[in-house]
Amino acid sequence: MRTVQVQAPSADYEVRIGAGLLAGLGPAVREVTGARRCMLVSGENVFPLYGGAALESLRAAGLQAEFAVFPAGEGTKSLATYGDLLERLTGARFTRGDCLVALGGGVTGDLTGFTAATYQRGVPYVQVPTTLLSAVDASVGGKTALNLPAAKNQVGAFYQPSLVLCDTDTLATLPDRELRSGMAEVIKYAVLGDADLFDTLMCGCYSMEEVIEICVRMKAGIVAEDETDRGRRRLLNLGHTFGHAVESKSAYRLTHGECVAIGMAMICRAAVRLGRLDAASEKAVSELLERAGLPTRTDFGQEELFETLLLDKKFDSGKLHLVVPRAVGWCETLAVTPEELRRWLEAGLDGNEV
Amino acid sequence: MRTVQVQAPSADYEVRIGAGLLAGLGPAVREVTGARRCMLVSGENVFPLYGGAALESLRAAGLQAEFAVFPAGEGTKSLATYGDLLERLTGARFTRGDCLVALGGGVTGDLTGFTAATYQRGVPYVQVPTTLLSAVDASVGGKTALNLPAAKNQVGAFYQPSLVLCDTDTLATLPDRELRSGMAEVIKYAVLGDADLFDTLMCGCYSMEEVIEICVRMKAGIVAEDETDRGRRRLLNLGHTFGHAVESKSAYRLTHGECVAIGMAMICRAAVRLGRLDAASEKAVSELLERAGLPTRTDFGQEELFETLLLDKKFDSGKLHLVVPRAVGWCETLAVTPEELRRWLEAGLDGNEV
Repeated sequence: MRTVQVQAPSADYEVRIGAGLLAGLGPAVREVTGARRCMLVSGENVFPLYGGAALESLRAAGLQAEFAVFPAGEGTKSLATYGDLLERLTGARFTRGDCLVALGGGVTGDLTGFTAATYQRGVPYVQVPTTLLSAVDASVGGKTALNLPAAKNQVGAFYQPSLVLCDTDTLATLPDRELRSGMAEVIKYAVLGDADLFDTLMCGCYSMEEVIEICVRMKAGIVAEDETDRGRRRLLNLGHTFGHAVESKSAYRLTHGECVAIGMAMICRAAVRLGRLDAASEKAVSELLERAGLPTRTDFGQEELFETLLLDKKFDSGKLHLVVPRAVGWCETLAVTPEELRRWLEAGLDGNEV
Repeated sequence: MRTVQVQAPSADYEVRIGAGLLAGLGPAVREVTGARRCMLVSGENVFPLYGGAALESLRAAGLQAEFAVFPAGEGTKSLATYGDLLERLTGARFTRGDCLVALGGGVTGDLTGFTAATYQRGVPYVQVPTTLLSAVDASVGGKTALNLPAAKNQVGAFYQPSLVLCDTDTLATLPDRELRSGMAEVIKYAVLGDADLFDTLMCGCYSMEEVIEICVRMKAGIVAEDETDRGRRRLLNLGHTFGHAVESKSAYRLTHGECVAIGMAMICRAAVRLGRLDAASEKAVSELLERAGLPTRTDFGQEELFETLLLDKKFDSGKLHLVVPRAVGWCETLAVTPEELRRWLEAGLDGNEV
């Protein structure tokens, strides 16, 4: 087992990564939360695979465990599902001494985390990510969220889990498309700040456990410095500005990771055209994304994407912090106006080779 | 103008108390939030009285001000209204650099505060309390909340405002019943920790501005020490454990303050019967409540109140922290089991004089 300590200003907790950790879920939850009851929250895809083992471990540890299972997909990160989960907790008389456990990917983690953040003004929760994307990104750092019809992650809270337990065995059953989607976030970390990781990924010589640890360690360092996304944490949005717009326009037919891949390729192309990045680096990033089976282009037009970009919640006092790659392993944030953002979008969209 | 500085762990801000402050709302909002846009949130009772002056001041200060007006009453603290307000903010493309202003009583403040806490994971907000209850209690300290059908304040966040602006002129138009309701919280502060305030209230020789300052100062001291209600802040629940149960059973036909008055009288009677409080103090508290025109008894039965008490979100690992008066100006918290709570309820309910 590998352990990464997250030392956020509001809370310290561990991310434990390794094979077979699910069997120890119950004792771990007892240890970090002290709870005697928990609500296991999961999705329809994941629950049949791991719900039984999770409940068994929780109950064997003496926890009274209930469960709530929701449909898979972004549609579940809604106010309606949130209300449903809150009603269940109230109906089962959950109190601040009880806890929630999120078993699944980013949707389950975000919904569970936001519910934990706000039920009775905050109850503890544990993240058990079962997707690569959630393991390396969504489950760590305390960003929780719901979607509104008009915009993704428009509602949420910064609220740290008490523990992240990543059983790498669960990744084995992940559909290929989900695994590729997670690789987009892994590649993001490499481009963002780890040229060695980039080379490792390019040569394909790594274990998943090792890669997850590297990514989580990088994220933990960033979150420790900037928990609430006012400074350095913004770097984690590499590829996400254009990516979220594509994701929103695609009505979630594309996965988050696919959209991040497209967004990363777009910002690299734009960075070359606008004189911030050398063409060889852009080519290497696109090649790595394509090797991972990820898309690098979108058919959406400039106008429709720009409309969606204007809704980005990272617009603050008229400016948005765009993460721009300067080299593999080095990015910077630029505060851009809507007009400047349009220029970046245009440079990123052009279908011709740079 | 009187100013109280609230130094909570998560944020420092001022509570400004005085006549005519509403006229300076705009410059104050600019000063503390730096925002260029704001959403003024208010209730149907309050908006016609002060909404115009508030908007005028905001716009004169160069803020682009929109507004949202909701029905008065606890029904507005719902997930449905919350969703409505979130949609409006999204529709108007509000970002993290914009802010919310709550103009009204506790319902408006709680709804606005929770929305501010969670819209885009947090935007600044300013409290402009127009009721005595909100001025001395709800607007200060960052407790925000929504109700679920089964339980009041079941959902929420600790999220501090950037400023509390209490224009004492707005209290002049307050219906008598609302003013009395606020006095229940004022009397709570006196019983809790200020025997001098108790005497002042008993003799009736005070200005409202002075009383508000005393209460806010006491609350600020408590919140500075315990922002998230894990220790000393629990003292502020004096009268609220039984009071919330009565409020919930009455389906909000009684005001919050009336229920707190009943809850305070009940816990005083119980404390006498269970040997914690002298009978003279209990008599003095009841007398002060009655002089203020507040009720001190309920017709609800023990069983139905006990059922509701078991839903109290302050139950934590099987115990609830009950605030028990030991003298006027001195209270303590007791961790009680459901069985012990039943005994306290029984002792508090008995209609006979103690």
